[in-house]
Amino acid sequence: MGYRGIRSAVVGMLLAVVVATGGAQPEHDQLGTMSQQQLDVTKVLLKQERAWNRGDIDGFAEGYKDSPETLFIGGSGIQRGYASMKENYKRNYPTKEAMGQLSFLELEVHAIDEKVAVCIGRFKLERSKKNGGNAEGLFTLVFEKTDAGWKIVVDHTT
Amino acid sequence: MGYRGIRSAVVGMLLAVVVATGGAQPEHDQLGTMSQQQLDVTKVLLKQERAWNRGDIDGFAEGYKDSPETLFIGGSGIQRGYASMKENYKRNYPTKEAMGQLSFLELEVHAIDEKVAVCIGRFKLERSKKNGGNAEGLFTLVFEKTDAGWKIVVDHTT
Repeated sequence: MGYRGIRSAVVGMLLAVVVATGGAQPEHDQLGTMSQQQLDVTKVLLKQERAWNRGDIDGFAEGYKDSPETLFIGGSGIQRGYASMKENYKRNYPTKEAMGQLSFLELEVHAIDEKVAVCIGRFKLERSKKNGGNAEGLFTLVFEKTDAGWKIVVDHTT
Repeated sequence: MGYRGIRSAVVGMLLAVVVATGGAQPEHDQLGTMSQQQLDVTKVLLKQERAWNRGDIDGFAEGYKDSPETLFIGGSGIQRGYASMKENYKRNYPTKEAMGQLSFLELEVHAIDEKVAVCIGRFKLERSKKNGGNAEGLFTLVFEKTDAGWKIVVDHTT
């Protein structure tokens, strides 16, 4: 898929964000286009998606804040810290095949204030059966505007 | 249980928050006591717990921001809005017995900025089998400091 897959994912996301903005957050923009903040946050996720799909976990991890306080809440409980998150990803997804093809869908970016945003959405992982099979779920990501740009500080994925 | 149950839950929470502060967020207070923000957010949850355990869904709901944009992410997908959340709770928990006894455990309040906090924790619902049985799970709550005090704007519970 490569280019085409990524491109349609981008379009899908932009549409999803536009709809969310038009409906749920009219105060940000009556016309339903994205605010700069929503666009900046969305770009972080698009970059993560691209990194993941070329087998680049370090690139994917850049979407998170490099802090021991970054939080990951999931089916297996609570994990803490950027460094151990990266280790876990590398252990659980040792090859490009094990990583599969990731898509973020139905993204909505909600501005909480100028420095904080919450993104909710759905992920889909397409992967051959022998590499673990497909997966999908819902996530809530809390983004903080840091000196290094918008970064995820809390990730609750289920 | 009543008083005793609530009291020990409070103590448990305070301890959990203190530990979290001492470990994960040393910049807020080196001595591991709660910041005012952490205390204020914790109080909202203690009030929710008390309201729930006396069968008062309206009181419980006051912990959430009264907005059509308040978000609830859970096993059954995404739900929107304070009003429909309240309706759903009243439909799903029609009696005090169906509501059971709620405890919040292992609460951690993480300050994102002066106006936003994220609370992660665990809930436990004790309930007779004929009323649906026990339940438990993990949650991530995004709190916003509003004119009416700290309110939950995003709830991801699983």
